[in-house]
Amino acid sequence: MENFTFHSPTKIIFGKDTEQQVGTEAKRHATKVLLHYGGGSIKRSGLYQRVVESLHTADVDFVELGGVQPNPRLSLVRQGIQLCRDEGVDFILAVGGGSVIDSGKAIALGVPYDGDVWDFFEGKAEPATSLPVGVILTIPAAGSESSDSCVITNEDGWLKRGYSSQENRPVFAIMNPVLTFTLPPYQTASGAADIMAHVMERYFTNTPHVDYTDRLCEATLKTIIKHVPMVLLEPENYDARAEIMWASTLAHNNLLSTGRIGDWASHQIEHELSGIYDVAHGAGLAVVFPAWMKYVYRHNIDRFVQFAVRVWNVEQNFFEPEKTVLEGIRRMEEFFQSIGLPVTLEGLGIPDDRLEEMAAKCRKSPDGTVGNFVKLTSEDVLNILKLAK
Amino acid sequence: MENFTFHSPTKIIFGKDTEQQVGTEAKRHATKVLLHYGGGSIKRSGLYQRVVESLHTADVDFVELGGVQPNPRLSLVRQGIQLCRDEGVDFILAVGGGSVIDSGKAIALGVPYDGDVWDFFEGKAEPATSLPVGVILTIPAAGSESSDSCVITNEDGWLKRGYSSQENRPVFAIMNPVLTFTLPPYQTASGAADIMAHVMERYFTNTPHVDYTDRLCEATLKTIIKHVPMVLLEPENYDARAEIMWASTLAHNNLLSTGRIGDWASHQIEHELSGIYDVAHGAGLAVVFPAWMKYVYRHNIDRFVQFAVRVWNVEQNFFEPEKTVLEGIRRMEEFFQSIGLPVTLEGLGIPDDRLEEMAAKCRKSPDGTVGNFVKLTSEDVLNILKLAK
Repeated sequence: MENFTFHSPTKIIFGKDTEQQVGTEAKRHATKVLLHYGGGSIKRSGLYQRVVESLHTADVDFVELGGVQPNPRLSLVRQGIQLCRDEGVDFILAVGGGSVIDSGKAIALGVPYDGDVWDFFEGKAEPATSLPVGVILTIPAAGSESSDSCVITNEDGWLKRGYSSQENRPVFAIMNPVLTFTLPPYQTASGAADIMAHVMERYFTNTPHVDYTDRLCEATLKTIIKHVPMVLLEPENYDARAEIMWASTLAHNNLLSTGRIGDWASHQIEHELSGIYDVAHGAGLAVVFPAWMKYVYRHNIDRFVQFAVRVWNVEQNFFEPEKTVLEGIRRMEEFFQSIGLPVTLEGLGIPDDRLEEMAAKCRKSPDGTVGNFVKLTSEDVLNILKLAK
Repeated sequence: MENFTFHSPTKIIFGKDTEQQVGTEAKRHATKVLLHYGGGSIKRSGLYQRVVESLHTADVDFVELGGVQPNPRLSLVRQGIQLCRDEGVDFILAVGGGSVIDSGKAIALGVPYDGDVWDFFEGKAEPATSLPVGVILTIPAAGSESSDSCVITNEDGWLKRGYSSQENRPVFAIMNPVLTFTLPPYQTASGAADIMAHVMERYFTNTPHVDYTDRLCEATLKTIIKHVPMVLLEPENYDARAEIMWASTLAHNNLLSTGRIGDWASHQIEHELSGIYDVAHGAGLAVVFPAWMKYVYRHNIDRFVQFAVRVWNVEQNFFEPEKTVLEGIRRMEEFFQSIGLPVTLEGLGIPDDRLEEMAAKCRKSPDGTVGNFVKLTSEDVLNILKLAK
């Protein structure tokens, strides 16, 4: 096990009607709030009105900025930063899914910074401070509601880049599973793949002796595998929605990577897909991850056997471990397909004429490789993309 | 699933040599520190000297108070409160196991309070504030290093009482598994039973649809069951010590009770044992829990079947579920015995002449009962104690 620091101070307020507490919670941190949201679904659902009422009741002043798109854009972030400066905003309230929250986090980083906020995403600067962020979550997927990460897309070159920092942890996250009842099936399924990918990026590690976190990862994966088919059949199944929502948070608040070094190649590769083609991040991961697995599993057959047996209930073939591994990967693909996700680039609607470009662009570590479990070259990335065709 | 608020803001600093960071961490919160510890083992081990050096290096002023005993005493807490007031202490650094940490938490609660600190434990008052507490953990067991709970024994009547509050969460917990290498086998085993009990108190719930937290509980129990025998054979097995230490924290920071109502009868009953007889808390729990299980399992056979199958790997008897349940309980008793713990009052050295007194004294809820899974009367508690003879 590796040494680690784990500090997840986000206050989680979870359950029915919890959005009514937003005014009181924001009041603890805010003089003036930026209410940040997406395309307007929170207005249609009535959530916007309840949030505004709660802010009014708690006597919290606010301005608003909607219009966050999936794969949130740098241009809107810059617009939000200017608005906050002009209006004297000192607290960001993000109401939505991971895109809205990430956009809000980026605004929070940028407001007190003299330079351009994109500097953080390019590794050119570290923030000295940032505004506090609060969240009302409507989509369980990205885990951004308590994570230290933030992913933004720069339209100039369609670069999708993440920036992780303790500054990015929201001060509170309000999570009402009822708000997820109206999520369309494809978005529910894409979210599930995103959650599972967050766990699997941590699961596939070279760190030995991490049995406890292995088991916590497996518990999280099994929870998603069990409950997502349930909510696709019964979108208003509160308890199943709640299990998924809570799993989405723990999948990405770094609890599951305590003491271990994760991989993250699949995320880096997927960022190239959704950066260029604007596909749903989770759906992209459902395509990339099986291909990555097929490409790297020989690196540590035992870990893949454990994954197949414990997560996918494969009956272990003690004499031919590779068969156990491949059956585990097959069941994962079958699961993704069963919940309506593609498992090939073609199924995702991505042609094969820019694979080289994506492999070349894929963000590398200082040593020029992608990922940790196996350190992939651009050629490896290209091979994985070809396996995913 | 129930609504919940989960807020565990303790910064965990985990791994080899991490105690060297204590000065820097304390400096963030402290003007003057109370260095609080137990019987002096930290002086013999050299930890005391390393802590003092780190405080000196960071230029942090401190006074000290040692002498905390297992089942920490109210009299020393009162002494610590007076010392802190006299010396202008604004930060408590507890170096030790659960007893030292709980003693430190009680001092932290008492310093800014005008009345007697015991008021909090009797439910007569709520703290408006408390001093911040930092921890260097040396015994994985109580989970107090990040929990919201604190248990103190009042020598006047040997009342052992807990008080839980968000105020009790330490601001940081430094956890170096190497510090646990020298724990004697009985203390290691008692700690393991305490950790398992914290999980099982949460596991046996009447809240339906809590599959995710069930699985997280099972992961934690299996981690303890796997690694404790390993460290009894190899006390300096770093990775096994690390798995136990991290499990001890997550077992009791309320992560595993998110969305569910736990039981806690066994803890209440054990408090009477260790309040009067001063036995190790964990060893007391190893005696009470199996008896409690045998007394209540019919209340929800399915939950006990799941426990037996998933935690103890009992091959399920689908036609006679009671056999599966009883085999699970038997394996738990066998496990406790295998790590050197008693599973009867007699084995614990407790005679049977004060069982009625303990059953009568056992702290009741406002409705006069003990526990939640099954609400026990004093007569039920007596029956459980008799089953444990």
